[in-house]
This record gives sequence, C-alpha cells and structure tokens, in this order.
Amino acid sequence: MNAVNHLIATRMESENAPRIPEVTAHLIGAGGKRIRPLLTLAAAGLYGYDGEHDVKLAATVEFIHTATLLHDDVVDESDQRRGRPTANLLWDNQSSVLVGDYLFARSFQLMVEAGSLRVLDILANAAAVIAEGEVLQLSVARNLATPEETYIRVVRGKTAALFAAATQVGGLVAGASERDITALCNYGDALGIAFQIADDLLDLTGDDIGKNTGDDLREGKLTLPVIRAIAASDAQERSFWERLIGRGRYQEGDLDIALGIFARHDILETVRTTAFDYVAKAQAELEILPDTPIRAELHDLADFVVSRLR
Amino acid sequence: MNAVNHLIATRMESENAPRIPEVTAHLIGAGGKRIRPLLTLAAAGLYGYDGEHDVKLAATVEFIHTATLLHDDVVDESDQRRGRPTANLLWDNQSSVLVGDYLFARSFQLMVEAGSLRVLDILANAAAVIAEGEVLQLSVARNLATPEETYIRVVRGKTAALFAAATQVGGLVAGASERDITALCNYGDALGIAFQIADDLLDLTGDDIGKNTGDDLREGKLTLPVIRAIAASDAQERSFWERLIGRGRYQEGDLDIALGIFARHDILETVRTTAFDYVAKAQAELEILPDTPIRAELHDLADFVVSRLR
Repeated sequence: MNAVNHLIATRMESENAPRIPEVTAHLIGAGGKRIRPLLTLAAAGLYGYDGEHDVKLAATVEFIHTATLLHDDVVDESDQRRGRPTANLLWDNQSSVLVGDYLFARSFQLMVEAGSLRVLDILANAAAVIAEGEVLQLSVARNLATPEETYIRVVRGKTAALFAAATQVGGLVAGASERDITALCNYGDALGIAFQIADDLLDLTGDDIGKNTGDDLREGKLTLPVIRAIAASDAQERSFWERLIGRGRYQEGDLDIALGIFARHDILETVRTTAFDYVAKAQAELEILPDTPIRAELHDLADFVVSRLR
Repeated sequence: MNAVNHLIATRMESENAPRIPEVTAHLIGAGGKRIRPLLTLAAAGLYGYDGEHDVKLAATVEFIHTATLLHDDVVDESDQRRGRPTANLLWDNQSSVLVGDYLFARSFQLMVEAGSLRVLDILANAAAVIAEGEVLQLSVARNLATPEETYIRVVRGKTAALFAAATQVGGLVAGASERDITALCNYGDALGIAFQIADDLLDLTGDDIGKNTGDDLREGKLTLPVIRAIAASDAQERSFWERLIGRGRYQEGDLDIALGIFARHDILETVRTTAFDYVAKAQAELEILPDTPIRAELHDLADFVVSRLR
C-alpha cells in the first residue's frame, strides 16, 4: 500500500493547474479505508504476483473512486466527507467537477500503462456502470414505490461494480484462471453490496467515518432501511415518509421518528441480517481460490466491512 | 458521418437508466458542427483507411466532447447551448454531471474496442489535458494580470487537445508514419486554437451558433479580446474591467462599453489576425501529408473555422 500511496501522490500532480493536487490531497489525505486498492493488491497477491502492474491498477481504482466522491458531493450537495468539509464547500462545485474529470482521465492513463486491453475493458465498463447506478438512483429519488430490487441494482452500480472490478483486475494481471476471475468478481460484487448496506445502517446509528449521523435521511435518500420501513408502514407512518422522502421536507426530530418506525417493525435487524448474508456470499466465493494467508485476509476483510454493525 | 451518428445513437443507450439517452439526445440531437469526429474520419481517409476503427474513434471523440459540454454548462452555470436550454436547466446539475461521467466512460469502452494501446494513451492524455485546461481557467478567473501566454495554455488544454487527439488517432489507425502523425497533431492543435479564438470573437459580434451574444462577458471570462483590451486600457477603462472581470459585477450596457473599448484600441482586428495566423499555421502542417482531395478538405475546414469572422 505504500507504493500505491506514493504513486497516487505522484500522479495527482499537475504542472498546469496547481489547484488539482490541492483538491485531491484534501480528499485523499483525509484517509478513507482504501479498501478498493487493497482488493486489487490482495487479488494479485493470491497468485504470488511480483510485477508492478498491481500497484498501478490499485492506484487507478482509488483514482476512479476519488473522482466519483468529488462528483457525488456535488450531486448530493454534501458538506462533510471523511470528517472534513467537502471540496465543493472549500473550493467550489466547479473545482470538484473538473478535478474529478482530471482524476478520471489520469486513472485511464495509469490503466494504459498496465498494458492490458482486457483490464481496460473491465475498468471502463465499471466506470460506465457506476455512472448508470448513480443516474438510476437520481431517477428513482423521491419515489416511495421503489422496490428493493431497484435498490440492489443501484448499489451494484454505484458501489459494487468498482469492488468487483478491483478484485478482477488484480487476479487478471497475476494470471488467474477464468474460473478464479469469476469468483473474484462475485466476491467483490457481494462485498460491495454488504459494504453499502452497512453504510446505510451506520448513517442511522452513528459511527466514526466522519459523516453526520442521519445525513441520508436529511437528503431524503432511499436507503435499504427506508425502503423496508415504507413497505411495512401503516397509513400514519406512510405520511411521514411521504413528507420526508417523497417531498424531501426534512424537519428537526425526523431522525428520532424514523428510528421509532424502524424499531417498531424490527427493520434494522432484518437489514443487518441481509448485510451478513452478502458477507457470507462473498466469503463462499473465496473457497475455490488458492488457500493462502491472503485468502484468509480477504475472508476477514468481509467480516471487517460489517464489524461495526455488531 | 452517418455511421458515426448511428454508433453514437446506439452507444448512448442505457438499459438501467433511461435518463441517460434522454439527456444525451437533447444535446447531440441539437446538432453542433461535429468538427472533431470529422477530423478523425478525414485523417484516416488521407491514407485510404477502409476498416471500422475510424468510426469508433470518431464517436469516441464526440462522446468526450459531449461529456465536457455537459460538465462545462454546470461549471459555467449556462442556460443556453446550441440554441436550446442547457441540460442542467432542463433536468438538473446532478444529471449533467453524472451523464457526462457516463459518456466519458462509454468513450473509453469504444476506444478499447479499437484495440490500440497507443490510441488509448493519446485519448486518455487528451482527456487529462482538457480537465487541466479547465481547472487552470478556473484558477486564473477574475485575475486581470493573466498574460496572453496563460490564455493560450488554457485553450491548448480545453479546446485544442481534443482537436489534436482526434486527427492523431485517425492517422494512427490508418497506419500513418510518425512524421505524418506529428503533422496531424500540430494541425489539430493550431486549428483548435483558431477555433477558440473565433469563438471568443463570435460571442461579441453575434452569430448563429445558438449562444447568447455577450455570454462570455456576462460570465466575466478572460477571452483573448478581453486580455488584450486590459493590457491596452487607460485608468478609466481599467476600472471598468476591474468591476466586470475582477469582481464579476456585470451591468446592463456593459457589452456596448466593452465594444467601445475594443474599437478604441483596434482589439478585435488584432485578435482576428491572430486567428488567421493559427489557420495559416494549421494549413502549413498539411503540406507534407498525402496530396489527396481530403487534404484539400482539411485545408478548407481551417478556412471554414474562421469564415464567419470575415
């Protein structure tokens, strides 16, 4: 990971526009869990890879992720990310949009250096699927009739696609078999879904990732707990969701009301169970992969993603 | 160009997010001059290319261009483009950001299909340089001391880089020599600069491209006429620029005041001369290329770019 961090620091430089490394450093310097590049390195490590392409691809994946965070904060009009003010607040929306574009282009340059058209295809496809997931989320926003199936489609796009691509390309550069690459892809997909569901829950119950508790509710987002609560709600509860989600009218005290509804219908417990199910699904995919210490770490990583939910 | 238009229509579809083709069709359907894809087809045609990659790369180039237009309109808070309301006004900024990201990712998928790592490198580099140019423009906005040299650097990034990449990759897929590829690159670069300078002038003098006359002034943009006028201005004129550009306080009647200052110092005439100089530079690069009817068309295209300035 040191090599990845070093490469990220080098490649975010821009001779022509010093604001680019300023904005990028603000976000990348704030830390974050670096799960995606770790997935690439681990997947390559499973096969004893000792070249340099895994580091390039890991940095690529983190650049794509950082670009989507910059654009997300503009789209969501967020004011906090990783415990710091967001870039759109410190600079402006313009800088966030354009620096995101720059990082996205930089990520493709790094991929080209890795020299594999198949890797490029997987990552270009992931980038398209991420944007599709985000646009789909935007199109169903405020629609209380959105089914859980659509939620999963959104999450597969906006979160799981990059997890799956990160593991796949790691295996690919290391020469994994087609069977193993499929398993790595499925592992990343299930892990990404578990990760997003955990994120939905932590937004409600509080955690240390530097977001404000209840942000998703304030933004009227259709998270999995909200979708399940709407389906279980009586008429009075439903009118609450219609105001909060349907019309986007957040009021002081809404977080407590929502938590009351969740408790009444045991929603958070069922959502937690779903997250653990996806973790188990991810771990099951690992079984056919080489039985090495790294495989055990990928197993533990899946537990880690939901560990704060216990 | 029919094949390019057909490919664009096919590839902007999204099964998961129907808003994507809606937004894209709004912009692409409005026409535009399609100069960039034409450059790719013409450059490949110079060498008698009869494969399919030139069409893919032409569509790629137009997708990158469309993605940057969507993001530009968010960055500039524009309300009109190609004579229609902008996408950010019809839908929202969110859709413009995310659909731009989608088109950008799609463009990379198309490039991968063309199967050349060198082509990918050129286009990924162009995409990075475009974003750098836009960020640089943002950083020097409102700074009256910005020299003409910085203006050219911005334009090389935000406009000329894609023109140059479009011609280069056309030559590349068709097997042009390194010497010819360099000439194609220089042609595209000079043509792009001429194009942007013409755009600056047409914003002031009015034209039929569907923008509002004086938009750049209203947005306080440092165009080439403005930079030259600032350098030539006396104290009273300078205080006008300080309000309009430095503090971004546009007032009714400013367009006429600016036109008066331009006339007093003969600015528009010198800027026009600079545009024609770049056209001549572009045309000189063509001399070493195969002497075919297509070369004559590339020569005429350079004249066309500034034809409305006569």
